[in-house]
Amino acid sequence: MTRPALHPNTNHRVVIVGAGFGGLECALRLKGAPVAITLVDRRNHHLFQPLLYQVATASLATSEIAWPIRHLMRDRPEITTLFATVSGVDAANKRVLIDDGDTLPYDTLVLATGARHAYFGHDEWEPFAPGLKTLEDATTLRRRILVAFERAERESDPERRAALLTFVIVGAGPTGVELAGTIAELAQDTLPPDFRNIDTHQARVVLIEAGPRVLAGFADDLSAYAKKSLESIGVEVILGEAVTECSTEGVVYGDKHLPAKTLIWAAGVRASPVAEWLHAPADRAGRLQVLPDLTVPDHPDIFAVGDTVTIADAAGNPVPGIAPAAKQQGRHVAASIMARLRGETPKPFRYSHAGSLAQIGKRKAVIDFGAIKLRGTIAWWIWGIAHIYFLIGLRNRLSVAISWLWIHARDQRAARLITQGSSKVVR
Amino acid sequence: MTRPALHPNTNHRVVIVGAGFGGLECALRLKGAPVAITLVDRRNHHLFQPLLYQVATASLATSEIAWPIRHLMRDRPEITTLFATVSGVDAANKRVLIDDGDTLPYDTLVLATGARHAYFGHDEWEPFAPGLKTLEDATTLRRRILVAFERAERESDPERRAALLTFVIVGAGPTGVELAGTIAELAQDTLPPDFRNIDTHQARVVLIEAGPRVLAGFADDLSAYAKKSLESIGVEVILGEAVTECSTEGVVYGDKHLPAKTLIWAAGVRASPVAEWLHAPADRAGRLQVLPDLTVPDHPDIFAVGDTVTIADAAGNPVPGIAPAAKQQGRHVAASIMARLRGETPKPFRYSHAGSLAQIGKRKAVIDFGAIKLRGTIAWWIWGIAHIYFLIGLRNRLSVAISWLWIHARDQRAARLITQGSSKVVR
Repeated sequence: MTRPALHPNTNHRVVIVGAGFGGLECALRLKGAPVAITLVDRRNHHLFQPLLYQVATASLATSEIAWPIRHLMRDRPEITTLFATVSGVDAANKRVLIDDGDTLPYDTLVLATGARHAYFGHDEWEPFAPGLKTLEDATTLRRRILVAFERAERESDPERRAALLTFVIVGAGPTGVELAGTIAELAQDTLPPDFRNIDTHQARVVLIEAGPRVLAGFADDLSAYAKKSLESIGVEVILGEAVTECSTEGVVYGDKHLPAKTLIWAAGVRASPVAEWLHAPADRAGRLQVLPDLTVPDHPDIFAVGDTVTIADAAGNPVPGIAPAAKQQGRHVAASIMARLRGETPKPFRYSHAGSLAQIGKRKAVIDFGAIKLRGTIAWWIWGIAHIYFLIGLRNRLSVAISWLWIHARDQRAARLITQGSSKVVR
Repeated sequence: MTRPALHPNTNHRVVIVGAGFGGLECALRLKGAPVAITLVDRRNHHLFQPLLYQVATASLATSEIAWPIRHLMRDRPEITTLFATVSGVDAANKRVLIDDGDTLPYDTLVLATGARHAYFGHDEWEPFAPGLKTLEDATTLRRRILVAFERAERESDPERRAALLTFVIVGAGPTGVELAGTIAELAQDTLPPDFRNIDTHQARVVLIEAGPRVLAGFADDLSAYAKKSLESIGVEVILGEAVTECSTEGVVYGDKHLPAKTLIWAAGVRASPVAEWLHAPADRAGRLQVLPDLTVPDHPDIFAVGDTVTIADAAGNPVPGIAPAAKQQGRHVAASIMARLRGETPKPFRYSHAGSLAQIGKRKAVIDFGAIKLRGTIAWWIWGIAHIYFLIGLRNRLSVAISWLWIHARDQRAARLITQGSSKVVR
C-alpha cells in the first residue's frame, strides 16, 4: 500500500490532541479542507462517555460505547491517527511533545484533552472512592459493585454484611444520579433471584451532595422530581453535606460516619494540564481560559475545546462540560481553521444550549429544554432514543437497543462480569 | 427474602468445584434430585471457551461469551453459588478448603476444575508468549495484537517494524489454527484502510507446530486441507519444529531465530492440581486418572470430570479435552449421583464422539464427523450455526449473530479496544 494521495495543497498541518467529542468533531468537520491532520490520543478508542455509567453497572458491554479512532477515520486519507501520549507543547517551535521523545510539528494545534475526576485536594481518597472517566474506570467500578454483593453473600457478620451492601455515591450531578438509580435497579430488579443468603433488596444506595439539590444544572422542579423519584426506588438522598473523609471503612460527612465498602466519586473534575503546558490562565479546576474565538491567549495558532477549557456563553454563564458543548466547539474550530485558510477572520464561538437530559432509573428521566420540561416515562423514552441516535454506526445502535430491551423486558443485564482477576485477587 | 424452600430430603450435600462445561452440566442435570448443591468457582462467570479466540482477535465482546454463574442458577433454589477459590480437599473429613480459611462440607464432591495452558517446563516463557484460557487472557492478547499494529505504524526502522508485524502462534491444534486464521483476516480484511504508514497486508502470521500436521485430532485429509487453506490466506505453517526459546525478541525453533514482537502460546495444557490435592495418580500433564465411573481411586464419594482428568474411551484412546466431552462427563456424574441416592450402582462412563470442528478463517472450516467429513464454506456455516446454538440464551445468540454478520458483511470488528491502560502503559 502506498501512502494515500493527499489534498493537493496540504502543506498546512493541523494536530488535534484528544479524540473525545470535541477533537473528533473537529476532525470530522475539517473534511475537504486543504490540511493534513494528525489526530493523537493516548487511547485507541473514542468513548461515548454519557453511557459510561451503564458499563459500570453491568448494563452495557465496553465495546458498545467505544469505537477504534482510526476506524472512524478510515475514509479520510488526509488524517493520520496516532496512538500516543502527549506530554506537552513547545509553542515557541510549534510542535507537540510525545512522551517517548517524538515531536509533532503543527501549523495549527487543537487541544481537546478533556478532564479527569478530582478530589478537591484529597487525591488520597481515589483508591477508596474511584471515579468514572475511562473504560477501565467503568470495569473497575463494575467489579467493585459485583464483588460487594458476592462478599455479602458469604459474610455472616451482620454489620460487615450491611457495610458490603451499602453503596455511596458522592456528587449528585447527572453521573451521580444515573449511577445511584442504576445501582438501585440492579439491587431491586436484577439481582434478587440470584442470591441465596442475602436479600439484595436490602442494599442501601446513598447519594451525598454538598449542594442544596440534585441535578443542579436543571430547573428547580425537575431537581425536586428527580430527588423524589430516586427516593421512590430506594435511593437515600443526602443534600447540603460535604464528604470529609473516604476510607476502606466508609465515608464521613458532617458529624456522621457511614460504614460502606463501595464508594463512588462523581463530585468534581479537574481539567487536563494544557494550561500548565502553555503557561496560560486557568480557573480553579485547571480549565484553560480561552478567548472568544476559542484560541489560547497569546497563541493564535492554538485552539482549545471541551472539558479542558472554560468560556462563558452569551448570558455570561459558563458553558457546561457536556458532550454537545464540546462538539459545538470542535465544529466551530474546524470552521475557524477553514475560514483562516481562505483569508477570512473567524467568528467568536456562540454556545447554543439544546437541553439537559438525565436518566433516573426504573424507566424515568428528566429533560430540561428550557421552555419545555419533561419528566417520567415519556422523558425516559426520549432520553433512550436520543442516546441511541448519538451512538456511532448502525451496529452499536442495534446492539445497545437489544441490551436495553433485555434489561427492560427481563431485568437481565448482559455484562455482569467480574474481570481483572479471580476471586483471590479481587477480594 | 427468606431462604427458598429446598427439596424435603436435601440432607445430601453435593459440592461442585468449577462452573465450566463439566461442572455446569452436572449442576443443571441434578435438577429435581434430592440434594443441596454448592457450586463454587473462582470466577463469577461461565465462559464459552470455544469462542475465546474471537475475543482475543477483537471479533466478539467479552460479555457475548460469558454468563454470570449465579444468574444461570437463578431458578434453582437448591443451588448456592459461591464466588471463591478452592485451595484443596480434606478428603478424610469430607470438606473442601477455601483459600480464605472457610471450609465446605460435602457428601459428594465433583471436581471440574479444568486446565491452564502449560509451557513444558518453561514457565519463564509465559510473559513473552501468553496463552488463552480466561477472559483476561483474551483481552490481554487483544491488547498485544492491536498494540503491535499501532507501534508498527509509528516505527520507522524497517527491521523493528517487521518484527512488530510478525505474529507467531505456537501450536496448531484448533485454538492455534483459529487464532492464526483470524489474525490473518484481521490483517488482510479489517485493518488495511485504517493505517497510513504501514500496509497491514504485509503482516506475517506464522504457525509453528512440533507435530507432523495441523489439527492432529482430525483426519489426515482435513489436516492437509486446513494447512492449504491457512496458506492461501497468507499464514506460514511450519511443521515438525519445536520452539526452543521465547523472548521479547521472538522465537527460536530448530536452528532458526524468527524476530517477532507478538507470540501466542497454544501448545499445551496442564491440569488443575486436583490430583495433588488428593494424592491420586495423574498423567504427565497432571490429569487425574479416574476410574471408569469417573470417581477418584480410593475416593468413591469424589467424582472428577473434564480437562482435569484423563480417561480412555471404548477403543482405548484418551477422551479429548473438548467441551462436549466435559459435558457428557458432567451429565454422567449427575446421573450417577441420582442412581446412588436411589440405591442403584452407577454405570461406567462411555464417551460418544460427536465430531470435531475447527474454523480456519475467511469463511472456511473443517468438520470431522468420522464417517462424514466436511470442509470449506458449507463446513463454516455448520460451524457457525452449531456455535450459536450452543451459546446460552437468546440474547447472546442474537448478539453473536449480529457481530458475525458485521464481520462478514463489512469486515468490521466491534471489539477493537486496547484496554488495561493508556498508550504510556501498554507500550
